[in-house]
Amino acid sequence: MPKNIILDLDTGIDDALALAYALGSEELNLIGVTATYGNVLVEDGARNDLALLELFGRPDVPVYVGEPHALAKDDFEVLEISAFIHGKNGIGEAEVADAKAGVQEQSAVDFLIESVERYGDDLVIVPTGAMTNIATAMQRSESFARNAHIVFMGGALTVPGNVSPWAEANINQDPEAADYMVRHGRDITMIGLDVTLQTLLTYEETSTWRELGTPEALLLADATDYYIRAYDTVAPHLGGCGLHDPLAVAVAVDPSLVQMLPINLKVDTEGETRGRTIGDETRLNDQEKTAQVAVGVDVERFLKEFMARLTRVARGEAVGA
Amino acid sequence: MPKNIILDLDTGIDDALALAYALGSEELNLIGVTATYGNVLVEDGARNDLALLELFGRPDVPVYVGEPHALAKDDFEVLEISAFIHGKNGIGEAEVADAKAGVQEQSAVDFLIESVERYGDDLVIVPTGAMTNIATAMQRSESFARNAHIVFMGGALTVPGNVSPWAEANINQDPEAADYMVRHGRDITMIGLDVTLQTLLTYEETSTWRELGTPEALLLADATDYYIRAYDTVAPHLGGCGLHDPLAVAVAVDPSLVQMLPINLKVDTEGETRGRTIGDETRLNDQEKTAQVAVGVDVERFLKEFMARLTRVARGEAVGA
Repeated sequence: MPKNIILDLDTGIDDALALAYALGSEELNLIGVTATYGNVLVEDGARNDLALLELFGRPDVPVYVGEPHALAKDDFEVLEISAFIHGKNGIGEAEVADAKAGVQEQSAVDFLIESVERYGDDLVIVPTGAMTNIATAMQRSESFARNAHIVFMGGALTVPGNVSPWAEANINQDPEAADYMVRHGRDITMIGLDVTLQTLLTYEETSTWRELGTPEALLLADATDYYIRAYDTVAPHLGGCGLHDPLAVAVAVDPSLVQMLPINLKVDTEGETRGRTIGDETRLNDQEKTAQVAVGVDVERFLKEFMARLTRVARGEAVGA
Repeated sequence: MPKNIILDLDTGIDDALALAYALGSEELNLIGVTATYGNVLVEDGARNDLALLELFGRPDVPVYVGEPHALAKDDFEVLEISAFIHGKNGIGEAEVADAKAGVQEQSAVDFLIESVERYGDDLVIVPTGAMTNIATAMQRSESFARNAHIVFMGGALTVPGNVSPWAEANINQDPEAADYMVRHGRDITMIGLDVTLQTLLTYEETSTWRELGTPEALLLADATDYYIRAYDTVAPHLGGCGLHDPLAVAVAVDPSLVQMLPINLKVDTEGETRGRTIGDETRLNDQEKTAQVAVGVDVERFLKEFMARLTRVARGEAVGA
């Protein structure tokens, strides 16, 4: 039986790839997308989610709008670097029509809480933007905090950050939320820069989509090429773009793709290293570890899985379409 | 055949425990001690090394004096916190007579270089203070950098530092030296706070030494009790003192005591996080990893080995005595 999954996205080019990865996975049943902010404003993310779901043949998947800004802030503006990497519209200025469907009335946070109550261990939640929706759900519902299984993209444990030498972009959006999540969750898997900067995509792969010529394939190729070009500028030593968000979905499908380090995590919210993900020294010797951090990845196998699943969606053959 | 080992110590209470661990290990042949600075001045460290070697029945082990200060500095003063933790004399104000033997004429750096030339793969070097001697040897001899097998105590990868939220004390003494070592060495094993704050000793263990009543046992008990009292003040959440330096020696004997993460390391030498040990993002995707960081430790097995070896020395039965 497929595993139920909720994607909590700030869509975002690699969020779009994560969405496609999920829709190309027979092992998954995407019960909803919750929108968060980060690469884009929350409402632009929700708009992209709806548009992409329709393009990929799954307009039936409901989209829920989440919190618009960080716990400790009153508003949110897209950082210049985010707009540079993802384009102003979030998907590399690639064009995709607005969906017929609109967003759900229920809030993202209520949907998250209700879904964990309903599905329990048969649900995995994959946040790939600011962790504000997740932290808010945990603050409102102890049962959510206790029972949610979360595989998030974000953080950097054994490598430097990407918005500062210590902070990764998703964590940096709302350090308080991320800290709350890793301190209160019981089953938290971190897919951070430690592994996602090892899983690189190049023009060679996107050209195979372009050759397919379908609207789905062209959107994926256009958006991803924009993303690779941005990486050529901001991280030329890599030789490709990091497949951040799709790797988190891939691990939700198959944890054996990564090597995990069990750990009790915290996020620095004060001092010079605000936004850093690091082991909590006060819980170092607790036998129970509430998180695990991916510190190694089977790059070749992941890329094979990624291309197989994305190409399925690029062909217009998303699961359930 | 026992493995040849050189200890590069800034003796220091846990350095004394590391020395005793080595002298209690039949698997090891201690060919020399090189003195560095950190917990104490280099000359005080050498004095302690000679005195302890005589007390432990091994006055034949030669002691070499190393560099007196960091690569980028002109002098060195013991930090107040170091004097608080280790006592002004480095061994918790415990009394041990000056040795009859003096230090060698040859410098620590020359001895290190010569030893790697002579013993090659049959030698392991265990630095437990500032990495200045090691970096200087690497700078003077490419062959040393290429061939030395090093297991150092220092750094913090998955937990915060102990002199700042990002820097560990040994690395903090000379970040340039530590950075040079991890960038130029080919076989570097890091035993950092990630694991050494998991291996704790309490008054319960030291009281078994005290009951033995030998001069060796009383010295070990007095010094270690001082160290535990300091930990009660600076890190009361731990409930004991961290067995930093002896764990590095233990891993030199038996690497299976820890779980290792292969990685290419760097040390931040500039910016806010000066002194931080972290993965080098520019070498993240190099297949060859020149370092491995201990991220897990078999606490129970290590403590059993530690007590067996230390108690041997405490009984006056050091190997070769």
